[in-house]
Amino acid sequence: MKRVLVTNDDGIYAKGIEVLCLELKKEFEVVVVAPETEQSAVGHAITLMNPLRLKKVNRNGEFFGYAINGTPADCVKLAIKELVKPPPDLLISGINLGANVGINVIYSGTVSAATEGTMMGVPSMAISIDTFHDPDFLPAARIARQVAKMVLKNGLPENTSLNVNVPAVPYEEIRGFAITRQGTSRFHEKFDKRLDPRKNVYYWLCGATWDRNNADMNTDAGALARNFVSITPITHDLTNYKAMEQLKRWNIPGLQANEG
Amino acid sequence: MKRVLVTNDDGIYAKGIEVLCLELKKEFEVVVVAPETEQSAVGHAITLMNPLRLKKVNRNGEFFGYAINGTPADCVKLAIKELVKPPPDLLISGINLGANVGINVIYSGTVSAATEGTMMGVPSMAISIDTFHDPDFLPAARIARQVAKMVLKNGLPENTSLNVNVPAVPYEEIRGFAITRQGTSRFHEKFDKRLDPRKNVYYWLCGATWDRNNADMNTDAGALARNFVSITPITHDLTNYKAMEQLKRWNIPGLQANEG
Repeated sequence: MKRVLVTNDDGIYAKGIEVLCLELKKEFEVVVVAPETEQSAVGHAITLMNPLRLKKVNRNGEFFGYAINGTPADCVKLAIKELVKPPPDLLISGINLGANVGINVIYSGTVSAATEGTMMGVPSMAISIDTFHDPDFLPAARIARQVAKMVLKNGLPENTSLNVNVPAVPYEEIRGFAITRQGTSRFHEKFDKRLDPRKNVYYWLCGATWDRNNADMNTDAGALARNFVSITPITHDLTNYKAMEQLKRWNIPGLQANEG
Repeated sequence: MKRVLVTNDDGIYAKGIEVLCLELKKEFEVVVVAPETEQSAVGHAITLMNPLRLKKVNRNGEFFGYAINGTPADCVKLAIKELVKPPPDLLISGINLGANVGINVIYSGTVSAATEGTMMGVPSMAISIDTFHDPDFLPAARIARQVAKMVLKNGLPENTSLNVNVPAVPYEEIRGFAITRQGTSRFHEKFDKRLDPRKNVYYWLCGATWDRNNADMNTDAGALARNFVSITPITHDLTNYKAMEQLKRWNIPGLQANEG
């Protein structure tokens, strides 16, 4: 039986991770190592200045998994280095409450957990559902199980994780899968400038949902808007290779002719 | 006079940001908006659940800049949305104590600040020096000023920031510039498993420096090891485009034929 490590960024007590695990246990051995508290928008943060502690967590009267007082990336590191031997066959991060698409992927703890798994040599995927309002997670859990089987069968391209986003509709209304690129959709952010009870100024980041109805079908948000499951292969190599050539034409004094 | 926004992840009281600003002020108008405390390894974390506050900070008896109780990405967002009008001509993040190369770029608050600037439409660069031991920051500050002028003259490729790393040697020993890709060097990480005074287990992440002497000259670490300044163009589009084709051959049931 294949072994799946499950984590998330909404925390070990979230509903999304519970429904995911129930579905995965029909087919896989599941180990949960997840943050003790919600870690949304922590991106790829890791904890260097503080010790990490492990806590056994029960849900529904039985052992559910290990909670860690850290970030999703911390959970993946500690799980693979210390807790899960031999390494798991697959890592799944989710099910996140809210899509992780477009520009906002860069802030996502859910996606960063998958990236960390890939960097540690474990095939990894993130899965999110496209709503912030108490959804039925079961369709996304079923999709997660299907994609997990695909990954285990086919293997993933080198240095690549999957960022999977599922529309928040009944399972029957999901129209299929689409292989997409990360789009450019984003929140329209602004800061609320407020006064605290002592009349001191503070700022609070807020963001309005973006309009994705016109998003290209080849992008994550575009596929979601049309009720497809979006699968985006993402990498942790941030190099813009095309831009390298452009920079070499800058006439930089002392520029080294790179070796081939 | 061009206006430069300066931030970092070592915090507004770090030496690196002070030396950088002194050098930049010879040629530019400088605005500092930086984290109040050290934020190393926070990656692209942003603060959603807490308010952000601004504090004026003096150094050497005069106004130095604004400190924010948040991450480097928070500083960039708040600076560009609220504090610096019109937007700055350039953002520089650094000078970071310690190189940001290879796999570890993904954890870097310094680099994430530059990425955030780029995402907000401001040409942005990160600059780091390749040592953790109290260095002379002046050579790196001079390099920052040179690269800043290049960026202002040539403009940056779309969706692209520069990740600049400077060897920790006297200025005369720097051999020139190299345009590089993000390499695969990384720390050899492990967890120290310890007992606290109450005999409870805790874990602490530690990492030994990697061997970069054999790193490819075309990579960030390889150029640094040969005493070149490494300039890597990085993007926030995480899509692995090559992998998209590979996934489309997976024989996925219900796979949408993407529109052109």
